[in-house]
Amino acid sequence: MKLARRSNCPVACTLDLLGDKWTLLVVRDLFVGRHRFDEFLASREGIASNILSDRLARLSAAGIVEQRPNPEHRGRATYHLTKRGLTLESVIDAVASWGLANLPGTSLAGRPPDASRSPRKRRRPPSSGA
Amino acid sequence: MKLARRSNCPVACTLDLLGDKWTLLVVRDLFVGRHRFDEFLASREGIASNILSDRLARLSAAGIVEQRPNPEHRGRATYHLTKRGLTLESVIDAVASWGLANLPGTSLAGRPPDASRSPRKRRRPPSSGA
Repeated sequence: MKLARRSNCPVACTLDLLGDKWTLLVVRDLFVGRHRFDEFLASREGIASNILSDRLARLSAAGIVEQRPNPEHRGRATYHLTKRGLTLESVIDAVASWGLANLPGTSLAGRPPDASRSPRKRRRPPSSGA
Repeated sequence: MKLARRSNCPVACTLDLLGDKWTLLVVRDLFVGRHRFDEFLASREGIASNILSDRLARLSAAGIVEQRPNPEHRGRATYHLTKRGLTLESVIDAVASWGLANLPGTSLAGRPPDASRSPRKRRRPPSSGA
């Protein structure tokens, strides 16, 4: 599953691997503790099972995800971030922070839309004196 | 050009806007000083003109890019990052850093592949004593 590179630019090569609407959502789910195929399918965005299978296979081929046997269900694997996969936290964080700061109505899971606006520091308006 | 959101997750909503193989490359080009349509077309990845037109229109609709008249060619606009667009630097940086650190052979423009490996700090191995 080796992909042809469009250039040796690190942005282009990362997008060759992760540049679509679904791959980083699977990575996000892994970071928040989802590990089973049915858990990914149950995420709010409604990923289709064929797309999920494809993205898990690509992420495995890229050394970002590894399968482990599921002790509760023989024959059904669980999926985990590898050491390399864990380094994607910086990318997920940058994407999430940008969305929170720039796309009104977005919120982190489980928080109401306006309680979790940008994690970035905001400048206080200058004191009006007194 | 309003896109339907899949959820209110900031990762998902950012990917609704930027999650493809080309959009962040146009943003990258803007950050490195390309502003004309033909300059984007000339980038190494070989973006097609219809895809480029579509992405510039989407980025404009999202308030990330603005058109300005080109004083040298009437009727041909130049494209510039808005204040909102400039905040994508953190996303580009995270994606580029991840690529440099994890995808062998990637390099920043104009540098040989191995002279520019990850900008991240690396731990030194512990001193072997003496």
